[in-house]
Amino acid sequence: MHRVAEPPGVLPQAADRLDTDPRIRDDEVRVRVERLNLDAASYRQLHTAHGGDPDRIRAEVAEIIRTRGKMHNPVTGSGGMLIGVVDEVGARSPLGLRPGMRVATLVSLTLTPLRVDDGLARWDGRSEQVPTDGHAILFARSIAAELPADLPPELSLAVLDVCGAPALTSRVVGSYASPTVAVVGAAGKSGSLSLAAARRAGAKRTVGVVPNETEAARLRASGLADEVVLADARDPIALAEAVGDGADVTVVCVDVPGCEHGAILATASGGTVIFFSMATSFSAAALGAEGLAADVTMLIGNGYVPGHAELALDLLRAEPTLLKMFQERVETE
Amino acid sequence: MHRVAEPPGVLPQAADRLDTDPRIRDDEVRVRVERLNLDAASYRQLHTAHGGDPDRIRAEVAEIIRTRGKMHNPVTGSGGMLIGVVDEVGARSPLGLRPGMRVATLVSLTLTPLRVDDGLARWDGRSEQVPTDGHAILFARSIAAELPADLPPELSLAVLDVCGAPALTSRVVGSYASPTVAVVGAAGKSGSLSLAAARRAGAKRTVGVVPNETEAARLRASGLADEVVLADARDPIALAEAVGDGADVTVVCVDVPGCEHGAILATASGGTVIFFSMATSFSAAALGAEGLAADVTMLIGNGYVPGHAELALDLLRAEPTLLKMFQERVETE
Repeated sequence: MHRVAEPPGVLPQAADRLDTDPRIRDDEVRVRVERLNLDAASYRQLHTAHGGDPDRIRAEVAEIIRTRGKMHNPVTGSGGMLIGVVDEVGARSPLGLRPGMRVATLVSLTLTPLRVDDGLARWDGRSEQVPTDGHAILFARSIAAELPADLPPELSLAVLDVCGAPALTSRVVGSYASPTVAVVGAAGKSGSLSLAAARRAGAKRTVGVVPNETEAARLRASGLADEVVLADARDPIALAEAVGDGADVTVVCVDVPGCEHGAILATASGGTVIFFSMATSFSAAALGAEGLAADVTMLIGNGYVPGHAELALDLLRAEPTLLKMFQERVETE
Repeated sequence: MHRVAEPPGVLPQAADRLDTDPRIRDDEVRVRVERLNLDAASYRQLHTAHGGDPDRIRAEVAEIIRTRGKMHNPVTGSGGMLIGVVDEVGARSPLGLRPGMRVATLVSLTLTPLRVDDGLARWDGRSEQVPTDGHAILFARSIAAELPADLPPELSLAVLDVCGAPALTSRVVGSYASPTVAVVGAAGKSGSLSLAAARRAGAKRTVGVVPNETEAARLRASGLADEVVLADARDPIALAEAVGDGADVTVVCVDVPGCEHGAILATASGGTVIFFSMATSFSAAALGAEGLAADVTMLIGNGYVPGHAELALDLLRAEPTLLKMFQERVETE
């Protein structure tokens, strides 16, 4: 909280502006930043707001970081993560980091003090991956993972960005006896990892929902889902019909608004919906379930589950087709 | 969906406008409306927006109902419920209603076709209870409860309005072994019912969090909480310190924004937060838990749990002090 510049008394996440002073306290860590990975919903909003103009997107991101002292999109409320090299470690930092370690931060950029020194000049503004130079501060309660030596850093970053999704999916799926699991947005990063996690956690049948034939073909080729179906997740009736009998666990990984009712309708009585999309509306979900008289448990996808980084990286190593999907995604970005 | 006037193809909850034609289909029920009970967050928003001016509040509610064909506050996204007398029942309605029964609807007004015929002339605009005359349509998937004969209708309505909270609290508390349960906003309607439900479901210790000494005195007098503490729920540090060691289950019943981080901080690792407030921000909760590296399960409070109406009414009958709190609340409204 000592890094909150304004307003006073709030947690860093809720702050308008953070203090990015590079001098660390004894429980902090300073990281030399190499790359930001913007949250997908955040980048999409910026892209739409600026009509896809890369210069204007870059200018706004630089301006947000400059004025807020963090990459916290004020419209979507989301941030992203970063990779960098540990510069200095406070004597009382509990994070287990050493200078020179290459790490990814697993806490959101929305609460990480960040300064960029190059005006984002090396970023083309055309993807979520932002090469840059600057520094960030990690707190005692932050989480950072050392980047594994056996995977390219871009790939690890893409996985670690969404590693909460497979971890929570795994936990929920494991609480049912041979459940049917539907993943909405199944060809995306969090979706494909969640599918792999669901199968490993004991799903009897997995259904991958995708919006178009291109993604369907990719997902079918991966073999990650027992069944691949096409549906517009914003159309409740269409989504429920595509999933079929009602999933025991429905995992929402698409970052578009308006998927709440479809996810609820697609879920069997006694089932669970896990919302990972930051575009989820709390009231639409709460009132939707009530309005449909649906006895479903609805979880706010918590990006932190103990062991989430290791689980996600292990899934990638164990599933060659998942690794391939991530490689293709990182290459096209 | 046949009652959706626009846009086509969405569910009634998501619709801009519903068709209020009084002629029912064979799976519908028409109710002669006697009273609306606006959602607390909705009334508060209207009150604030109009500087407490009762005439302007009344005019806006009438205008919302007239233009949308339902009482669906476009700012808060919330509605409320109604009581009335069953007028006509379609031959294939599964709701078990008969003409002449006095009922309360347990689905939100946000998806209930509603027309008022008196311009809300009998409402003083000063409370959430709106006496009126008009009609509403119930669907096959709607839920309506017959008002019990042993309780005044206003009292039953106030209980049924929030009956999802004690039901879900009961279910979650029952999944832990002798847990500590904290209820934030414990002197309110859903809060006091949730406290009673938590104790009955096996809570070892209940903590009631209230914002001021007046509410603290009321709650202490009721004996519903083992411990009554004062805290501003929007102040994360203050809330966590007031609750103490970390609750196994934290129930958020205050309808003000910004309580997400405090609720997460007040909850022990492995615990559960249930958000019932429509002022909850999905992204603040999701990113907050991640930012705090908090391993907590976060539930979107579903207003529907099978048996919720009976459970809430039974709690009221079994707890004389709870009944007294509700009587005082209804009288002052």
